[in-house]
Amino acid sequence: MTLTQVSSWQSFGGTLSVHDHESALQNCTMRFAVYTPPQADPETVPVLWYLSGLTCSWANVMEKSGLQRAASKHGIMIIAPDTSPRGEDVPDDEGYDLGQGAGFYLTATQEPWAKHYKMDQYITDELPKVIAEHFPAADMSRQGIFGHSMGGHGAITLHLKHPDVYKSCSAFSPITSPCQVPWGQKAFTAYLGDASVAWEQYDATELVKERQTKATILVDTGTADTFLERELKPEIFTEACRKHGQRLDYNMRDGYGHDYYFIATYMDEHIAHHARALEA
Amino acid sequence: MTLTQVSSWQSFGGTLSVHDHESALQNCTMRFAVYTPPQADPETVPVLWYLSGLTCSWANVMEKSGLQRAASKHGIMIIAPDTSPRGEDVPDDEGYDLGQGAGFYLTATQEPWAKHYKMDQYITDELPKVIAEHFPAADMSRQGIFGHSMGGHGAITLHLKHPDVYKSCSAFSPITSPCQVPWGQKAFTAYLGDASVAWEQYDATELVKERQTKATILVDTGTADTFLERELKPEIFTEACRKHGQRLDYNMRDGYGHDYYFIATYMDEHIAHHARALEA
Repeated sequence: MTLTQVSSWQSFGGTLSVHDHESALQNCTMRFAVYTPPQADPETVPVLWYLSGLTCSWANVMEKSGLQRAASKHGIMIIAPDTSPRGEDVPDDEGYDLGQGAGFYLTATQEPWAKHYKMDQYITDELPKVIAEHFPAADMSRQGIFGHSMGGHGAITLHLKHPDVYKSCSAFSPITSPCQVPWGQKAFTAYLGDASVAWEQYDATELVKERQTKATILVDTGTADTFLERELKPEIFTEACRKHGQRLDYNMRDGYGHDYYFIATYMDEHIAHHARALEA
Repeated sequence: MTLTQVSSWQSFGGTLSVHDHESALQNCTMRFAVYTPPQADPETVPVLWYLSGLTCSWANVMEKSGLQRAASKHGIMIIAPDTSPRGEDVPDDEGYDLGQGAGFYLTATQEPWAKHYKMDQYITDELPKVIAEHFPAADMSRQGIFGHSMGGHGAITLHLKHPDVYKSCSAFSPITSPCQVPWGQKAFTAYLGDASVAWEQYDATELVKERQTKATILVDTGTADTFLERELKPEIFTEACRKHGQRLDYNMRDGYGHDYYFIATYMDEHIAHHARALEA
């Protein structure tokens, strides 16, 4: 697969680079960013995937979270994919919470979305092959996953489905029961059709009833998060984890919001959580 | 003076807030941001001014530099003003390097700029009064100043002119001899008229020939900075400092650019430099 480098910067002794490639899976050009820590030459290093939230691209976390500091310290490669397929030929919606920028890390079955929207397969299958081919320092036997909001939910669901691939998992301010909240219901109806068993395979709360992992999932959410009561509803997921034996370290952080100032504040703890699990 | 709070976020245990106020000096509404560290309640804390570069507002440094971490650790209040007067009634230019977003921290004497463009007086006189009135934790007897590019130059010139006010000074990738480079020559011609003694009072290299301070000025610049040879020309200023006895710690950082990924990498060292001088 051909990779086009869009830009590159030095950061905390490592390199942040942005790349385009043609996604045969999603039928469009996809862009992603990689932070390669200084340890990557000559060592191999663990790979940590960061899935962003609604409206975001690779840039939000790389520009605003300060994660390069901790990734450099621990020697972890960070991959930041986009949040959906994009382009003039890719279907979109007027809402910020559907279509481009809002892929929800699932495989759409409904029109007009089905040709392009396959973000879960893109993250778990197509993009890892690109990384393995073009970033030889990436140790694909040591991968973790985390994210924010819609992407925090994506990280938890992909960890629950692929615990042998993503050995560590954490999330900031995640959606955790999309079947029961407006963001999830709107997206799932559009991408998957009316409510059905198809929804449950993309719902962290439903998934954790069926399968639990050996990992402890780390979550931080702010008490001043404006989406807390309507979209995030931590109590549904924490209760399901408790009842079904999934280890979970869910922290409510007093006074923090849904923003990257919050994420930056707790980024070190999340990277350290993954570093321990991935032996970085 | 009335202050309108535009937004507020919690960050590293402190508060980042953005405010508007009517500037009688510049005849427009001015916006600035303040990071108040957790120590500010109940202590008073030193105040560190960050002057941004061309095109920037308060947001660039607050969103991208990660400075809240170190400001929280050391207990320093950070003030991030805008880089010029702004608004529909404020004169502008098609170039990114003149007019709105490009105030150059000077008092314009030429038309159409003279009514609004007085950024040096705004930074040294009008805005400190606003801070002292509305942020009682600000210890105005302990102030430092730093910045990036055009703002790094602003920081050095204001430190050289007001060493008893700004007791510490540092800069990332600063312009240091504006009379001798295209950015400075374009801006000074527009704001101040043809080359004259008026230019020299805003030129760090000219100023340091006349006055030196007790402080050591800390500077970091990247060797891969695309503006290095054309606009920054470190050798002119370092030679003037050496010849005239101004203490200067000027570091060239291998492989880094003119961007906030570079600034973030060395931000801790700059905040620590100011913390030592300001006894934070």
